[in-house]
Amino acid sequence: MTRGTLYGLGVGPGDPELITLKAHRLLTSAPVVAYPAPEHGASLARSIVADYLTGARTEIAIRMPLDPGRFPAEAVYDEAAGEIAGHLARGRDVAAICEGDPFFYGSFMYLFGRLAGRHRVEVVPGVSSLVACPAVAGAPLAARDDVLLVCPGVLEEDEMRRRLAGVEAAAIVKVGRHLGKVRRVLETLGLSGRARYVEHATMAGQTVMPLAETDAAGAPYFSMVLVHRRGEAWRR
Amino acid sequence: MTRGTLYGLGVGPGDPELITLKAHRLLTSAPVVAYPAPEHGASLARSIVADYLTGARTEIAIRMPLDPGRFPAEAVYDEAAGEIAGHLARGRDVAAICEGDPFFYGSFMYLFGRLAGRHRVEVVPGVSSLVACPAVAGAPLAARDDVLLVCPGVLEEDEMRRRLAGVEAAAIVKVGRHLGKVRRVLETLGLSGRARYVEHATMAGQTVMPLAETDAAGAPYFSMVLVHRRGEAWRR
Repeated sequence: MTRGTLYGLGVGPGDPELITLKAHRLLTSAPVVAYPAPEHGASLARSIVADYLTGARTEIAIRMPLDPGRFPAEAVYDEAAGEIAGHLARGRDVAAICEGDPFFYGSFMYLFGRLAGRHRVEVVPGVSSLVACPAVAGAPLAARDDVLLVCPGVLEEDEMRRRLAGVEAAAIVKVGRHLGKVRRVLETLGLSGRARYVEHATMAGQTVMPLAETDAAGAPYFSMVLVHRRGEAWRR
Repeated sequence: MTRGTLYGLGVGPGDPELITLKAHRLLTSAPVVAYPAPEHGASLARSIVADYLTGARTEIAIRMPLDPGRFPAEAVYDEAAGEIAGHLARGRDVAAICEGDPFFYGSFMYLFGRLAGRHRVEVVPGVSSLVACPAVAGAPLAARDDVLLVCPGVLEEDEMRRRLAGVEAAAIVKVGRHLGKVRRVLETLGLSGRARYVEHATMAGQTVMPLAETDAAGAPYFSMVLVHRRGEAWRR
């Protein structure tokens, strides 16, 4: 019996129409679909492609406890990888769906690390938030000889300031509760006036605003701050 | 008469199936399609979507002379923007197709800078080479708290070394004739053994190899070097 393939499918930033033709084809034909989910309730990744999940198929929700102390994340992925491996061994393809792109800060790497080498794995790249946020903000991310820095919001304040100093273009990803810190860092660097805040890009609730107008009290996890030293110099 | 919309359509890295459902819909319905092209011969961007360009439509090839001295690039974009504006004013939508993503080092910004504000413009994000190359190389681009640096190959050698020092993950884009320099920089930083070279990702002629095995004499313009300080530590 031919063994199945694990597909890491990037399903894009939120708008169901921003999935690729390839991911759509593989998703609608896969007998097993796996996705990350919170401990209780609906999976964001699954909700993006819900309209395409017609017909009978097996679903594997990889549920991550809010309090990882109770049930370590490693154990959750071990169990999911075992379940997926069982389907692959029985010749069933498994589509692991990922918000954005599987290899751009995605949790797919935890499945990949456990299953690649022992099973056939193919990654189907997707539209990442890194390009979706500039698209809805209406400003180029990087151009010509720009050096672009992508920096997670969780970075310690001094470290973030040091990394961002001197770059032409930057995206601070996974801003969430770090919004106040990000604002302080960019203010210190004199880049605050040129920074834009984006949340829920291409989804219901999409918000784009100057960083200075945000409420520093907090932001959703999937939010991004974009800054370009050139400002709006691309305008003619 | 309603004025038309200019769509900046990311068509992905090369595999025609890596276009989004949205870009496919807009492309197949737009009465006018514009794309970058060399002075003579076929457009790479157009070749990606050639199978979708059935039916009668107006095509605008934005031809860039090899020797920009003869006919400045600015003048080429001025003329193309004028032609596009004419269609928009007559109520025709124009799909400007872009390899990868329009705002990730794309030439679309030159049209955008000339037409945004005066015309309705919508950018449809696409799968960029930044995520397509890691997908075919089979290794995560960035994860967890990684800082990711995207650096054009054209950077001066000392500057490139300075920028790359200390980062966890990096992508050197538009490597082309700068391959020898990129190799020297990564060797100096002790990252050479962990770097992979990718050319023509998802296209015919796709090549993935360790950087150390490349022929430093040259590489195509659309080539990338990926490096991660962690190496293969994501493997378990």
